[in-house]
Amino acid sequence: MNNKSFVIGVDLGGTNLRAAGVDDSGKILVSRSAPVGDKSSSAVVAAIAGSVSEIANDIGSKPVAVGCGVPGIVDAENGVVHASPNFPAWSEEKLRDAVCSKVGVPVAMENDANCFALAEAMLGAGRGHRNVVMLTLGTGIGGGLVFDGKVFHGDSGFAGEVGHIVVEPDGEPCGCGGRGCLERYAASHAFAVHARRLPNAENASLLAAAGVDASAITPELAARLADEGNESAAVLWNEFGRYLGIGIATLVNILGVFTFVIGGGITKSWDRFISAAKAAALSHTYARHAAYLKLLRAGLGDNAGVIGAAIEARRLI
Amino acid sequence: MNNKSFVIGVDLGGTNLRAAGVDDSGKILVSRSAPVGDKSSSAVVAAIAGSVSEIANDIGSKPVAVGCGVPGIVDAENGVVHASPNFPAWSEEKLRDAVCSKVGVPVAMENDANCFALAEAMLGAGRGHRNVVMLTLGTGIGGGLVFDGKVFHGDSGFAGEVGHIVVEPDGEPCGCGGRGCLERYAASHAFAVHARRLPNAENASLLAAAGVDASAITPELAARLADEGNESAAVLWNEFGRYLGIGIATLVNILGVFTFVIGGGITKSWDRFISAAKAAALSHTYARHAAYLKLLRAGLGDNAGVIGAAIEARRLI
Repeated sequence: MNNKSFVIGVDLGGTNLRAAGVDDSGKILVSRSAPVGDKSSSAVVAAIAGSVSEIANDIGSKPVAVGCGVPGIVDAENGVVHASPNFPAWSEEKLRDAVCSKVGVPVAMENDANCFALAEAMLGAGRGHRNVVMLTLGTGIGGGLVFDGKVFHGDSGFAGEVGHIVVEPDGEPCGCGGRGCLERYAASHAFAVHARRLPNAENASLLAAAGVDASAITPELAARLADEGNESAAVLWNEFGRYLGIGIATLVNILGVFTFVIGGGITKSWDRFISAAKAAALSHTYARHAAYLKLLRAGLGDNAGVIGAAIEARRLI
Repeated sequence: MNNKSFVIGVDLGGTNLRAAGVDDSGKILVSRSAPVGDKSSSAVVAAIAGSVSEIANDIGSKPVAVGCGVPGIVDAENGVVHASPNFPAWSEEKLRDAVCSKVGVPVAMENDANCFALAEAMLGAGRGHRNVVMLTLGTGIGGGLVFDGKVFHGDSGFAGEVGHIVVEPDGEPCGCGGRGCLERYAASHAFAVHARRLPNAENASLLAAAGVDASAITPELAARLADEGNESAAVLWNEFGRYLGIGIATLVNILGVFTFVIGGGITKSWDRFISAAKAAALSHTYARHAAYLKLLRAGLGDNAGVIGAAIEARRLI
């Protein structure tokens, strides 16, 4: 255990902050969580600095650098958070320099989804692959593009919004202001969408079994019903997978990247949707891609955020 | 005119080969075309070397390097053409080394669509923009991604197949083996598709005016009819633009890139479709992107291929 050169990775969320001391192999040495109460940027900076200090005390020495994963639109190059859905009052917050002045070591800042992607690409399921696309399936779909070991940011930190690949031009309205975005068809709210699209008889049978309205169908309920042998529930999982695969096909065709790491709570039901996803992806790409396409299940779980932030931190030194 | 350090860019097509001496500002000094008769790789290598020699004679000195744009799947790193639709007998051709041994100077090799993209990004409509996506609208849609001044290749030279963004999951069959690809809705064959999708009465009126079957509607015919005030023809252009914009929205959301250069013969009708394209792109992306999105008309025309090849050549020295 090379404590002498550990870094600290911080994963900032809207309600909790997690920080971990990480050694030069990416191993977590010690980890702490703290609630995020006051959401002002000065309070968050103080909370980050406090966690860094606690981890340093735990380990008994100072980190060589700190990395922070932050939800929202982050200018990683300049360490500025343009805006964050979890911290609505923030605007153009120079968070990196503020943290740096408190902790006294170099600080890296990156979007949290990009931290997950970087961790999975370098030390998780995508390890050993040159280019990796990460999709995190939750209420929406988070994403990150890691090319040649580096997060791709596009023009100003907006890259990787893979949940907004347009899969149905006149489809379901989306929170982004558009319609037919992938995350309406292949994230947790998608089950209600697919239930509504079932033929009437199938939908009636599903509803009778579930005892709930189509709009209340969750992944958990769909999983339970499918376990009970409900064929309509299996159709919902198939549709979920099919759309995921269509989105992946578009990513393959645009990027020429074949390694996809898929994370998020819904991957508990991996076997329910992954075959449909792979079949759809292959049916919408050139046949010669079939041998290369890899859909991999994320391996780092909740540690991906702090590990990705730690990778960015280590690159500063 | 700095003849001392000129390079030669070669744009290889299935029927013609074009070569140009290009100075260090990207200016074409002299240009030649030659038919491609014998399609064996040795004959093509000889034809390329012959053109290089003629250009060198024209200018009166030897180029410092040669770049070749080649249609097909090109491994630019290793100078190998995996396969080419224009040269069906080719398989894993080590074209770069073969040309190099004939011309005696360093040789770069790149996919032709990537050459167009690189030229437009660096010296054409996209000049001055950090990241550029090129779309060439023809029978299909060619594409190229230029990030930080370099062609992005993905895992093995497949990147930039933007014509195969899936815009209608259960839509028109495509030559790639998939369905609903962008190039079925926003390239020259798209007019017949959109004509078939018109309501019956509109379609009948269009057909009566055109005197042809829906399947025979070309961009040229659609342009003439629109000029004559045929409203259904204007609908076809609107649909063409709308789908182009949907594809662009998906590119914006995935890549976070805002600069798009659009080329190909159909851009003669730029004003017929670009407003619909921009409106659709904006309606399928976050509102905050509106200020950044640029849809630019390609500026280098038929010179893009040799200029892009020349840019790759110059990077060797």
